Amino acid sequence: MASSLIRGRYLLSAADDSGPIDTLHDAAVYQEDGVIVDVGAFEELRGRYNPDSELGGANYAIIPGLVNSHHHGRGVTTLQMGTCDDCLETWILAGWGRRPYDHYLMTLYTAINLLESGTTTVMYNHPQTAAATLREDVDAVLRGFLDAGMRVAFSCYLRNQNRVVYADDDDFLAGLPTDLASDVRRYLAASHMSDDDYFAFCDEMYRQYHDDGSGRVRVLLSPANAQWNSDDFLLRTKAQAARWQTGIHMHLVESPYQKDYGIRTWGKTPVEHLQDLEFLGPEVSFAHAVWLTDRDIDILADAGATVCHNASSNLRLKNGIAPVNPMLARGVNVAMGTDSTAINDDDDLIQEMRLVSKLHRQPGLTEPAITSGQVLGMATANAAAPTGFSREIGALRPGRRADLVLIRLDELSDPYLDDDVPPVEVILGRARSRDIAATVVDGEALIRDGQHQRVNKSDVARELREQLARPVEPETLSVRRMAAQLSPYVERFYLDHAPAMGNPHYVYNSRT
Amino acid sequence: MASSLIRGRYLLSAADDSGPIDTLHDAAVYQEDGVIVDVGAFEELRGRYNPDSELGGANYAIIPGLVNSHHHGRGVTTLQMGTCDDCLETWILAGWGRRPYDHYLMTLYTAINLLESGTTTVMYNHPQTAAATLREDVDAVLRGFLDAGMRVAFSCYLRNQNRVVYADDDDFLAGLPTDLASDVRRYLAASHMSDDDYFAFCDEMYRQYHDDGSGRVRVLLSPANAQWNSDDFLLRTKAQAARWQTGIHMHLVESPYQKDYGIRTWGKTPVEHLQDLEFLGPEVSFAHAVWLTDRDIDILADAGATVCHNASSNLRLKNGIAPVNPMLARGVNVAMGTDSTAINDDDDLIQEMRLVSKLHRQPGLTEPAITSGQVLGMATANAAAPTGFSREIGALRPGRRADLVLIRLDELSDPYLDDDVPPVEVILGRARSRDIAATVVDGEALIRDGQHQRVNKSDVARELREQLARPVEPETLSVRRMAAQLSPYVERFYLDHAPAMGNPHYVYNSRT
Repeated sequence: MASSLIRGRYLLSAADDSGPIDTLHDAAVYQEDGVIVDVGAFEELRGRYNPDSELGGANYAIIPGLVNSHHHGRGVTTLQMGTCDDCLETWILAGWGRRPYDHYLMTLYTAINLLESGTTTVMYNHPQTAAATLREDVDAVLRGFLDAGMRVAFSCYLRNQNRVVYADDDDFLAGLPTDLASDVRRYLAASHMSDDDYFAFCDEMYRQYHDDGSGRVRVLLSPANAQWNSDDFLLRTKAQAARWQTGIHMHLVESPYQKDYGIRTWGKTPVEHLQDLEFLGPEVSFAHAVWLTDRDIDILADAGATVCHNASSNLRLKNGIAPVNPMLARGVNVAMGTDSTAINDDDDLIQEMRLVSKLHRQPGLTEPAITSGQVLGMATANAAAPTGFSREIGALRPGRRADLVLIRLDELSDPYLDDDVPPVEVILGRARSRDIAATVVDGEALIRDGQHQRVNKSDVARELREQLARPVEPETLSVRRMAAQLSPYVERFYLDHAPAMGNPHYVYNSRT
Repeated sequence: MASSLIRGRYLLSAADDSGPIDTLHDAAVYQEDGVIVDVGAFEELRGRYNPDSELGGANYAIIPGLVNSHHHGRGVTTLQMGTCDDCLETWILAGWGRRPYDHYLMTLYTAINLLESGTTTVMYNHPQTAAATLREDVDAVLRGFLDAGMRVAFSCYLRNQNRVVYADDDDFLAGLPTDLASDVRRYLAASHMSDDDYFAFCDEMYRQYHDDGSGRVRVLLSPANAQWNSDDFLLRTKAQAARWQTGIHMHLVESPYQKDYGIRTWGKTPVEHLQDLEFLGPEVSFAHAVWLTDRDIDILADAGATVCHNASSNLRLKNGIAPVNPMLARGVNVAMGTDSTAINDDDDLIQEMRLVSKLHRQPGLTEPAITSGQVLGMATANAAAPTGFSREIGALRPGRRADLVLIRLDELSDPYLDDDVPPVEVILGRARSRDIAATVVDGEALIRDGQHQRVNKSDVARELREQLARPVEPETLSVRRMAAQLSPYVERFYLDHAPAMGNPHYVYNSRT
């Protein structure tokens, strides 16, 4: 690699949730070997350095590379794979019957999609696949990300309890017809892993990939969720993360039923339970966190924990709208992710920023409305915080990695754009992934004009197309039949455990 | 014009808010001279007719032409023109300082954008421009729509009271510094029109354009909103609409402040007030209607009125989320529009359908979630109802106009699409305006492969670019200064009139 000077009419160099952002006009980033050396006025930097190449120009905007802080891969989406949107709890069950796929190809495809829409770093949370092939699967996943040039904070979640509904597996299975119960037991056994095996697996992953020399991988730990993991497991995770000085990424109160599990089980919210376990801390990031009480928000703010907001996923899976405005007001580090379930059923974090910037505008003149600067901060600096790359990415500052997105302004400002509109409003209000001229990681333009420069996406798509054109596997069809049989029992369980919902953070309409 | 056979792998022939839709597989529409003659299996229709041309094929979907039921033109958006999103009431004030523009070019540009994203009919509500040029302006607008080939339900709104805040103009102006008050009076005078002049103007429009022979224009009446029009004006509108057998289109309870005006003024909601006036009926369509009580919803359902839901606009202008699920449940005819303020700051009704389909998914297994069929119905049959074209468009049935959208399935289903996914979920979940192969009005493919076939969009954009490249007009700058001076007084008014908000229809999160 070498040096380059990247020029923009606007340079949004840093953003965080305090709202205001640093905007430079006719400015540039000068990078050498993937590290930002200087940021400033274009004319000055051009006089000062002698770059090997130049990128951008007078009609571009530069923003920090976007960070998707919650993602499960799935470039071929769950909808494409046959699982229609539904209530989270029944949607998870329907997902049991999803077809297996080639992890290397799928990750490559996903990573290219992410890069095409401006994401340079992803918090990838591996779904708990068959224990027999887990190691092979995650090696393929990481090879995929690295071949695509993507920065990745990797974790693999484990559920060590309550795997069918939010209650003890044996208790629940005891209520099923015997044949169905034994089919379900066999299904669960295939992905079962003991706690010891899980931590041994994480240890292998950590040794091989964390700081592997590429500078692009971090390995984190991942309990699946408060109701899916025993207290012992959570505490063991906490201790291991402390030894490794790495992060913990997990789901939390994604649905009202998950909050209700806490009330039923511990007589308190899952956040209060985690606080009492002394599990919380700045190394912990929670995906979703929709069903937070005022007190929960205070606890998370005091703990310095991160919440990864997945606005589209929360709507699609009937989980509601996370209380982002109160979280920001109380100082929670709120990041943004797509959960591989974004509004347009793709991996577009620019579109997701747009949705977030609209969704949190509470009615009334003085009621909170998230600002564009806050949203950009949630997708950059705030999202970088829990990845393990927090000091290296998330802002365009000397010493950080040269991860950035170059956006063409032509279409955004055509046929007119009033000078009164602040640059951040132009980008957050109008930019689309089609406007991306380049996505740069470590100074390398991985995407230029919509094309990945190292990997031929058409080839990847063709291979996936060929593999998936084969008939649906008999094992998959049999799991689908079992899930369909199981579905009414699962539904009945949740109907019997209807959560209390009331006193909302946001009032978006009124019955009276 | 002549005959054509339009083929699709899926044909979503009709949808309404009852949810299920008619889906045909490998089907076709046969049309002659713009009228649908037959809809059915492709092979049968190919054997039965001898079309002049064929369109579509085995890897396309066909849906009815989309109807945008609330729109104000503005192909160059309010953001591009310098008005950043804000609370509706202060946003309106900031809009006073928007630059004037060439109505013909702007409409042509808008109409091409609409057609490119699948909209074939628009409910265009003309903003009350300068009285001296109003007739000239609207002639230019209608010429623009007709030259683009778009179907249009035209109306021009008038505010005949409470034009600065939701209170008597004289009362409010009396509280301002004398100079400012007289500047504001002068500004208001420029667009003032007496009720008699307004109805004479509508009469001219109606005679010239309603059923003008093109079959593409209907003229409707338009009070601006309950707080902006006197009861006399509303009743005169109602009587005139009855004489002409035409529709009435107006804004209603867009913001909580507008509902509060009703409580303050009449001791009841604006809907209750309109009911008591005997204003309601199936000919009336209300844009927004966010702040409806349970009782309001019952009243609108009983009256057979239409609500035009503008999801993006309601979020962007801090107005909340309209209670669409309870409206649909009680049988209100709910349509869809963008209010020229869509989520991506464009005119894309496909993206707006996507937002609506995600936004109304209430948490909890048994809580309502809008279906994809309902959303498609809201953008087709339901939206057609108040346009005056209700029996001619909105569904692909013999005898109706051949207005339709042909969507390429290649990208939507690549690299894989499971056979279990219903076609309507594929379209609503994944289609984008870039997938549109053709937008057809009266059997004519106005858009093919992204290009308008009659008008060169680049030329239109270039002309607009040149006109708007001129310095901002001194008069505009002076209005901007006046609006900035006025702003704190307007804000204070609304701070003094904080509306009660509580007991929401939707609970999307919970403080406790």
